[in-house]
Amino acid sequence: MDLLFLGTSSGTPTKARNVTALALIEETGRDWYLVDCGEGTQHQLLHTSLSPNDLQAIFVTHVHGDHCYGLPGLLASAGMLGRTTPLHIVAPHGIEDWIRSTQRLTQLSLPYELQFTATESLGNWAMGSFLVDAVALSHRVPSYAYRFTEARAEPRLDTEKLASEGVPRGPVWGQLRKGSDAHVGGRLLRSSDYIFYPYAPRRIVVGGDNDRSDLLGDACRQAQLLIHEATHTRDVADKIGNRTGHSCAEAVARFAQDAGVPNLVLTHFSPRYQADAGQSPSIDDVRAEAAAQYRGQLFLADDFSRFRLDKAGRLSRVA
Amino acid sequence: MDLLFLGTSSGTPTKARNVTALALIEETGRDWYLVDCGEGTQHQLLHTSLSPNDLQAIFVTHVHGDHCYGLPGLLASAGMLGRTTPLHIVAPHGIEDWIRSTQRLTQLSLPYELQFTATESLGNWAMGSFLVDAVALSHRVPSYAYRFTEARAEPRLDTEKLASEGVPRGPVWGQLRKGSDAHVGGRLLRSSDYIFYPYAPRRIVVGGDNDRSDLLGDACRQAQLLIHEATHTRDVADKIGNRTGHSCAEAVARFAQDAGVPNLVLTHFSPRYQADAGQSPSIDDVRAEAAAQYRGQLFLADDFSRFRLDKAGRLSRVA
Repeated sequence: MDLLFLGTSSGTPTKARNVTALALIEETGRDWYLVDCGEGTQHQLLHTSLSPNDLQAIFVTHVHGDHCYGLPGLLASAGMLGRTTPLHIVAPHGIEDWIRSTQRLTQLSLPYELQFTATESLGNWAMGSFLVDAVALSHRVPSYAYRFTEARAEPRLDTEKLASEGVPRGPVWGQLRKGSDAHVGGRLLRSSDYIFYPYAPRRIVVGGDNDRSDLLGDACRQAQLLIHEATHTRDVADKIGNRTGHSCAEAVARFAQDAGVPNLVLTHFSPRYQADAGQSPSIDDVRAEAAAQYRGQLFLADDFSRFRLDKAGRLSRVA
Repeated sequence: MDLLFLGTSSGTPTKARNVTALALIEETGRDWYLVDCGEGTQHQLLHTSLSPNDLQAIFVTHVHGDHCYGLPGLLASAGMLGRTTPLHIVAPHGIEDWIRSTQRLTQLSLPYELQFTATESLGNWAMGSFLVDAVALSHRVPSYAYRFTEARAEPRLDTEKLASEGVPRGPVWGQLRKGSDAHVGGRLLRSSDYIFYPYAPRRIVVGGDNDRSDLLGDACRQAQLLIHEATHTRDVADKIGNRTGHSCAEAVARFAQDAGVPNLVLTHFSPRYQADAGQSPSIDDVRAEAAAQYRGQLFLADDFSRFRLDKAGRLSRVA
């Protein structure tokens, strides 16, 4: 499964970074999910292979505009591109009302259905190969992290056991592997006795805006990857106080280290951090601050950074 | 006064064209006005010298998303950039409600005031060096053109007349030129008797989406420039019928020819028209169709095309 960052700036877009959006792409490379949808997300998609027609669900972390103002345009364009399949939107209170009033006041009629689910009552939500749940964070408005857990890792058949019990290779093996019980020579063979899962389910936690990463302690158990905002460095965070409700790189990295998460991707950087290390403050200051706290695999996302989490839970950058 | 196109695509953005927005820039090069604000307009501005802090007013032609979905993000970013001066928004019914509900539902509080005027009751509206009025068009929803007329061309003093009447060069001349009457040797000299306007006021008509350019007949009198959508070519317009409420290049060009408008800029092209003349259909098909009807100065706008209308009413492309 791949993660493709479509926007990595906090608050306002810059020439190099759009506001927040992140695509989570299924193993097949076709079906995908979107976490947040800042203005211009549909423009970013034009530079990828992702189609709005294959988008299965949109998860919104909170109502601030830099995380959702791209929704109306993306929905409208999907309609103009001929989408007819329903689209799920999981979002905190406010977003459904906003989309509905936007539709009404701007005469936006869509040729497909929008199916809203309130984040507040999400529970464990099954979607594609994932189970998704949400964790409440701390920000100026209600904000959530979404946790994507592989619903079921690909099962393997215990062929050694079958051979030792004298069950001959044949259609029965396929039946058992698919989860169906089978009768062989008067014996009932239960599928669950002969299949096993060769790897732990993959688990990804994607935070929204948040000034208390420790709230993700439980959610990060058995997660291979945490994606979290690091809007500021410590010095800036200290200067502006916690009125913005954001995290600094140091705090998030220390949390990830303590929680034992093996991979950390930081994003949602204040436009003050310049791409060029020669300028000050630079994005390298953010990186250095996080690296001093965290001994796992650390990445700072750029727009169009693409990461792959393989079945063994290893994360690598693929673009 | 300059015109800078920030988006020239109809409906959806493409890699080369954003959805509609047009900047009208005062002679000074600083204060400017925006006509329409499709999604991503604030992103386009990052590639210009225009600042959201110098934006004086936004005119919205109609409520469709490709003409207004960039508003919330632009307003939010202007706030984050520290704008404090009020901003005028002239827009048809629906837009004020939409912006207000967007502010409420996405917790967008702005550090400056929004002053709304309904296009339906605009009348003659004075703004900077312009008088602005609106003309109702024909589209699927109420749509308007905005006409910008130079409020007062720069006055010149009739020095020959003054000399012939024996009024000596001195502070009185300056007084008269500024519009104040003056007493010279017991005589009252009326300013209006000694000033004249060396050129006709400049006038620009900017249409919204519209399938009947003839509705602009009156508005185009004494206009040096018409900017109008040409979403399709004639063959496509005939094929899809008038259900979209758009114009084809042929009809707009013929109207401009009949109305005697000396300059015509076409924009708002369907994404089907490719930039490369080798592909079909191409934007050159739109150009050829218009050129066959119109003998004035014809331009097809691209994103970041910049035009200058000089005091003599001559239009030239400057970028």
